[in-house]
Amino acid sequence: MRARDLLADFPVVALDSSAIEAARLLADQDLPGLIFVDDAGSPFTILPGTQVLRLAVPAYCQDDPALARVVDEAHADRFLRGLDGLSVRQCLPKEHRELPVARPEATVLELAALMARTRSPLVAVVEGGRLLGAVTLQALLDRVL
Amino acid sequence: MRARDLLADFPVVALDSSAIEAARLLADQDLPGLIFVDDAGSPFTILPGTQVLRLAVPAYCQDDPALARVVDEAHADRFLRGLDGLSVRQCLPKEHRELPVARPEATVLELAALMARTRSPLVAVVEGGRLLGAVTLQALLDRVL
Repeated sequence: MRARDLLADFPVVALDSSAIEAARLLADQDLPGLIFVDDAGSPFTILPGTQVLRLAVPAYCQDDPALARVVDEAHADRFLRGLDGLSVRQCLPKEHRELPVARPEATVLELAALMARTRSPLVAVVEGGRLLGAVTLQALLDRVL
Repeated sequence: MRARDLLADFPVVALDSSAIEAARLLADQDLPGLIFVDDAGSPFTILPGTQVLRLAVPAYCQDDPALARVVDEAHADRFLRGLDGLSVRQCLPKEHRELPVARPEATVLELAALMARTRSPLVAVVEGGRLLGAVTLQALLDRVL
């Protein structure tokens, strides 16, 4: 079993898309994460759901969630509004992340090792710079078990 | 909106359970992660799906997934068999992890900050040592958006 046997179509998000729409896509389609693509359609960044959520968490409480406690309930309920009017490009983390990207020939063990190390429940399958689809943790486990 | 308004029942895994059954639970119920409980029923460890998968990835290719490439397809397909006969307790990582655990009064911003920092799409809600349920990333986004 190889990545090409496990991959499925996966929605992609352009860097100029609205950040709040990206969060909505994650929620509405119950996705484990998002694949952000550059203008050429190649994966630029791949973020697990928790790190998409992170885009909306104010910097002051990212390192110390206890600081989030000083925000009252009414304001806390609206924290996603911090993304209003921002594009994905404006929100994405600046630091370089290892991309969970694999070739179509990758075995399930290679995919599992990549998911485990990058903490990504989602691997993009790429050939010659072209995105063929993605393998999710669920798809991998379903087939292996 | 508080954690108590968002929580739902969530299956738990005892430390003496079979590791392969834990992986099966994750896959069959399409869970974002697992809550492992001690003999008293309190959360002992909470792992996102990728780190449950990691339990089955041989140590030599955890840090360097390229090493997984030397394993042929037939053996790679059977990598989960590494968990056969092992209990959860025997497999869990030894290093201490910050537990994504919140009080029922936690706001959605506290929950989001905790999920983002611990990279856990799952927060256990605990009161007086008792597990009340869990808030998933999907549940949080669904309610906030």
